Amino acid sequence: MEIKDFKHSIQLRVRSFEVDSQGIVHNAVYLQYFETGRIEYRRNFGIHLRPDGVFSDGMKVVVARNEIDYFIPSYLDELLDVHTKISWIKNSSFCFEQLIIKNLNKQTICQCSGILVNLNSKTNTPEKIDSKFINEVKNFEKELILKT
Amino acid sequence: MEIKDFKHSIQLRVRSFEVDSQGIVHNAVYLQYFETGRIEYRRNFGIHLRPDGVFSDGMKVVVARNEIDYFIPSYLDELLDVHTKISWIKNSSFCFEQLIIKNLNKQTICQCSGILVNLNSKTNTPEKIDSKFINEVKNFEKELILKT
Amino acid sequence: MEIKDFKHSIQLRVRSFEVDSQGIVHNAVYLQYFETGRIEYRRNFGIHLRPDGVFSDGMKVVVARNEIDYFIPSYLDELLDVHTKISWIKNSSFCFEQLIIKNLNKQTICQCSGILVNLNSKTNTPEKIDSKFINEVKNFEKELILKT
Amino acid sequence: MEIKDFKHSIQLRVRSFEVDSQGIVHNAVYLQYFETGRIEYRRNFGIHLRPDGVFSDGMKVVVARNEIDYFIPSYLDELLDVHTKISWIKNSSFCFEQLIIKNLNKQTICQCSGILVNLNSKTNTPEKIDSKFINEVKNFEKELILKT
Repeated sequence: MEIKDFKHSIQLRVRSFEVDSQGIVHNAVYLQYFETGRIEYRRNFGIHLRPDGVFSDGMKVVVARNEIDYFIPSYLDELLDVHTKISWIKNSSFCFEQLIIKNLNKQTICQCSGILVNLNSKTNTPEKIDSKFINEVKNFEKELILKT
Repeated sequence: MEIKDFKHSIQLRVRSFEVDSQGIVHNAVYLQYFETGRIEYRRNFGIHLRPDGVFSDGMKVVVARNEIDYFIPSYLDELLDVHTKISWIKNSSFCFEQLIIKNLNKQTICQCSGILVNLNSKTNTPEKIDSKFINEVKNFEKELILKT
Repeated sequence: MEIKDFKHSIQLRVRSFEVDSQGIVHNAVYLQYFETGRIEYRRNFGIHLRPDGVFSDGMKVVVARNEIDYFIPSYLDELLDVHTKISWIKNSSFCFEQLIIKNLNKQTICQCSGILVNLNSKTNTPEKIDSKFINEVKNFEKELILKT
Repeated sequence: MEIKDFKHSIQLRVRSFEVDSQGIVHNAVYLQYFETGRIEYRRNFGIHLRPDGVFSDGMKVVVARNEIDYFIPSYLDELLDVHTKISWIKNSSFCFEQLIIKNLNKQTICQCSGILVNLNSKTNTPEKIDSKFINEVKNFEKELILKT
């Protein structure tokens, strides 16, 4: 993954309670940063989360897999850029690819590949992804793989 | 508050992600420890939390006030005792008093006084506390003030 | 406390992992929001946190007391304003007063009064607060009580 | 991964603040559970964490990769078993494999494969793993791959 492949990013600052006993951001906290990036990615299309955890367009997703590589540590009060894209969409699942970068010197802290599953919001079983979502992403991303 | 006034306690160990950039347990984390103590206090009476956050006897509570005094820090991997009692019950509210102690040397780390409000689980408005709860607590605590 | 008494505020959005089993922001999370407000208050004076949890002007503080009143719940994805002021300074301690408000309708969610102690960053014992800090705050706040 | 391949496990209960807006344990929280399992795995050999985040035998590790597959959700107050083993050791890195199981019905919630790097605790650069650690693990695990 390279920064130039991403069209969406947000800024976050490392908080005092996100740093662990080694003085570095805890490995679990990056999943919170990645999730914040994923939610803001959708806000970009005018979609927000409702209080029940379902998106305003009726979409409900759950995380099926996260694969994170940690390269260098980040420290208290650092300003981070979270870059987010969707790389592929299948029938009922899709993949976020994400990078977290030090805003100051553009060093890559970690990267994540996360697979989400679209659920029927009543039965909580996997459901075909709506074409509206597919079109939103297709029109936004430079490259998107539609798997069948 | 003194340890001898408490009949209920649980043990917790300080986790790596609960310690902050100063190497001490973060001030917000103690509210997580206190809440764990409050929930285990009720488990002692055979009551557990249902997935929706309502207790198995139908009781739904929300925190109205927390007052915490921090005396000394605690550190990674320390074993802590969380002591919990209910000191008073009013019409629709009651008060937890709690101490967190170092298991090793019995030094007091912090204390909390927390006021909870009993809610109607449908309307989420304050509701008179059930006599079953009052009796449970009255039979357990050495001293309990029933405010009217 | 009233909004008009505050000159410093920051905006935060409620994240998915900050909401609990009742669908509302967990009572401990507000202490994270309040701390973020306290740190940004100091950034306003050009002071930031170093990786070791000590401020860039050499000041090291620890929380001695937090008193939080919770009025109404906040929900996933809500935009919040955290208002922060310092109300008094004593020899080695000072008091933050803070409000969290719904950005949309200005309803008050909770308020906090927190006492912090200034530490000698080597011995970790209380130390007289530097006059530079006192002057910074005195010049910024409308009302500040200097206790002796 | 199958339960029968694991010799070490701990029990954890899902806490109220670990559940998100969908009423299920948040995907980042499992990394906290996995880390707790990893630390208790070492306590089994008489090794504990010092306040500075370094183990009592001088070993300092950092997470280089986490790969988590989430199968089914877990809910508030559920009792979970975290099963932990070390599957391979290389020059300066090793791999934890872990399962989280519902205590009640033995359903698998998620699994993780995590690669940790051994650091020189002064320079924070990768360092050859001590033979004492290798022997501890070799004597404990049924199967251990020593990569060269």
